[in-house]
Amino acid sequence: MNDSTTICAISTAPGVGGVAVIRVSGPEAIAICDKIFQPYREEKSIATQHPYTLSYGNILRGIEILDEVLVAVFHHPHSFTGEDTVEITCHGSLFIQQEILKLLIENGCQLAQPGEFTQRAFLNGKMDLSQAEAVADLITSSSAASHRLAMNQMRGGFSKELQNLRSQLLDFVSLLELELDFGEEDVEFADRTKLIHLSEVIEGLITKLVRSFSLGNVLKNGIPVVIVGETNAGKSTLLNHLLNDDKAIVSDIHGTTRDAIEDIVNVKGITFRFIDTAGIRDTGDEIENLGIKKTLRKIEQASIVVWMIDTTHFNKEIEYIADQIVPRTKDKKLIIVFNKIDKISPEEQLILEADFLSNIPAERIYLSAKYKKNTDILEKALLKAADLPNVNDNDVIVTNMRHYEALSQALQAIQRAGEGLRRGISADFVSQDIRECMHYLGEITGEISTDEVLGNIFSKFCIGK
Amino acid sequence: MNDSTTICAISTAPGVGGVAVIRVSGPEAIAICDKIFQPYREEKSIATQHPYTLSYGNILRGIEILDEVLVAVFHHPHSFTGEDTVEITCHGSLFIQQEILKLLIENGCQLAQPGEFTQRAFLNGKMDLSQAEAVADLITSSSAASHRLAMNQMRGGFSKELQNLRSQLLDFVSLLELELDFGEEDVEFADRTKLIHLSEVIEGLITKLVRSFSLGNVLKNGIPVVIVGETNAGKSTLLNHLLNDDKAIVSDIHGTTRDAIEDIVNVKGITFRFIDTAGIRDTGDEIENLGIKKTLRKIEQASIVVWMIDTTHFNKEIEYIADQIVPRTKDKKLIIVFNKIDKISPEEQLILEADFLSNIPAERIYLSAKYKKNTDILEKALLKAADLPNVNDNDVIVTNMRHYEALSQALQAIQRAGEGLRRGISADFVSQDIRECMHYLGEITGEISTDEVLGNIFSKFCIGK
Repeated sequence: MNDSTTICAISTAPGVGGVAVIRVSGPEAIAICDKIFQPYREEKSIATQHPYTLSYGNILRGIEILDEVLVAVFHHPHSFTGEDTVEITCHGSLFIQQEILKLLIENGCQLAQPGEFTQRAFLNGKMDLSQAEAVADLITSSSAASHRLAMNQMRGGFSKELQNLRSQLLDFVSLLELELDFGEEDVEFADRTKLIHLSEVIEGLITKLVRSFSLGNVLKNGIPVVIVGETNAGKSTLLNHLLNDDKAIVSDIHGTTRDAIEDIVNVKGITFRFIDTAGIRDTGDEIENLGIKKTLRKIEQASIVVWMIDTTHFNKEIEYIADQIVPRTKDKKLIIVFNKIDKISPEEQLILEADFLSNIPAERIYLSAKYKKNTDILEKALLKAADLPNVNDNDVIVTNMRHYEALSQALQAIQRAGEGLRRGISADFVSQDIRECMHYLGEITGEISTDEVLGNIFSKFCIGK
Repeated sequence: MNDSTTICAISTAPGVGGVAVIRVSGPEAIAICDKIFQPYREEKSIATQHPYTLSYGNILRGIEILDEVLVAVFHHPHSFTGEDTVEITCHGSLFIQQEILKLLIENGCQLAQPGEFTQRAFLNGKMDLSQAEAVADLITSSSAASHRLAMNQMRGGFSKELQNLRSQLLDFVSLLELELDFGEEDVEFADRTKLIHLSEVIEGLITKLVRSFSLGNVLKNGIPVVIVGETNAGKSTLLNHLLNDDKAIVSDIHGTTRDAIEDIVNVKGITFRFIDTAGIRDTGDEIENLGIKKTLRKIEQASIVVWMIDTTHFNKEIEYIADQIVPRTKDKKLIIVFNKIDKISPEEQLILEADFLSNIPAERIYLSAKYKKNTDILEKALLKAADLPNVNDNDVIVTNMRHYEALSQALQAIQRAGEGLRRGISADFVSQDIRECMHYLGEITGEISTDEVLGNIFSKFCIGK
């Protein structure tokens, strides 16, 4: 164990619930909990309790019963942190949670820092750094895609890929450094053509990982979509509808997360991040105003642009709006949504379809946001516009900016090594570049890490994890 | 078991946490969970898992791993609900919580209604109705006093008292009804003096319980305190200070509960509920305005009135304010707080102390809210003004309006019975009153209950409990 303190924290979500879980980890976890816990079966104690079992009893402050709880015990190294761990499941009142924490602290625990349980798991070799980071990603993931990426990374998919790279690099550098040992004799043990090929293979693997980041970033943070259109085109009705479709069981129960994920819509496990824009008004004078300028700037941030048109309010200014929007969507996907089709006749719709807008290269969808007609077609169009490659469970996708940066550095190093070999540069310089490449990969898994880096990573965790 | 369905819900607080607990209860709990859970130790299953143990493994949707979880199993009747129960501790992301719930529902669970786990515990005889209600009180209790009352009630303190009453009433009615069996012979088996004494003893016990409600209500919901004074007297500084003193560990961690308990201050385990008032301005004309009228009405709701005076801004209008406030505090405790004493000299303070205000019957406290000087004296004064009797752990205090109403009805019935005995009314009428008294007591414990009453009680619970 790397730390002699025993830490405690509430591990469940903040607030009042039916139950809450308080986690205690460290060398004194069992002894401290035994001081405040009285099992119903008198002959028992946490010290004699078998690991991976539950014991029912009272948390006592002196002779006063604070709560009736279940206590689970885990012995090191067979716990999440790798240390002795006790988990207390108590009633979920804030008062009880607070009092039990106080009691633990009075008896020698320290309040855990954010991420400290996971940090200890890392320090005790239960997981590498990229796996530890995936724990935080897993907890905050809110779509099937981001969840799958975090789960794969937590279970070591990425770590395995990095180990594979490191072992190839180690072979590589060993061959070169063998030459250096015999440096004075100026021999070349390693076949340069083979080495160049090896460097190219490794470069290819790292390049693939670096490139996967743009996809990983999109899957993790959502595909940016901007909805533009007139104020009364029905943008918020549509957005609310898409949001509600997505609110399944949890929000029915919780009702509290709405604010946080207000503009995040999940469609078949893919997250779309809707960027709000001011409505564009259709009076000639005001089109040039601040609002539209902002909207046009927001188009820059999006990869999909949904242009909503009120079909009952179809007027001349629309050509002007088209001139503003369309040129800015050249490298983006444009979806034109004709809303309120419930209010027009089929003939009018036919006229719309034959309209000048037909020249604009865009997907066209005729829907009624209010009556939820054809909104499923829009969802399909969004998925199509997202144009995501199929991701297999075994594919490693980089989602973390820190990893991306380390991989980019590693890529530069292996490229320098390859270049050096091709130019016939001496083995010790090439070897140095390969060592540098290994260093950056080691930063990702945490084989090479500084307190500052660790502090930075774990401070972003929630307390209790 | 009273219900053939198997229910599931998230039992921890809503939102994202390190971990979350999903509870599954009912005849199919083990079979359903076995369908979605794959333990790491292949030979194991939840069906063969020993009760009160934990098993580590994966929740699977098809072949996809949804999460790595801990599964606890409890066999009926040795569980909270009295049914077979499985508790899944998963990672606390909203996505995972939602997906596991969905998976359970797809495999035959029903989403639990609010309080349904506790309702089943009641229906399965694990607790009586007053204990079940105490579970909800325990979860929402936010002070030491309300917590202690709920804990005592949950552990059966109140139930025992009611059982005691019921058994005395049963003895009573048995004696009377024995006479009725021999009704035609017009004999009196029971000594009327003894019976009258018995009715008085029972009346005394019920009266004590009915009277305890005003204390119970105050302990549970807080003692209403109103702070009045000029706008700049420092009311909010003082309130913030009292609030912060009380914010111990939980709010440091959570930072989310502030809104909900903003005006609730705990002093040594007693809750004070601060009623906000508009500041009273010191210009003659405006004193009569809507603001002060509202403030004066709020004084009615309080049992303690804290009048804050800015000692640096002591002026003539204060006499007018005094005339408005003081007469309205006759049946209340008045505390006059002289704030900002850091800004006046000891001589000035002496003058204040000798001021006309000295005629007003009130506690006087000289403090600085800003520099937290003497605020502890105010806390002590609040506790003194609350004037709560000492409550022993064994004292039964009624905190629930439903119980209070039932007890009031029971009291009337036993009073009628006593009166009937004293007036020599025939045994069958007296017996009917005693049966009615028993009926009302039975409503509290749930021996007599209707679906409507149960629905009403449990719908106020949170889901997952």
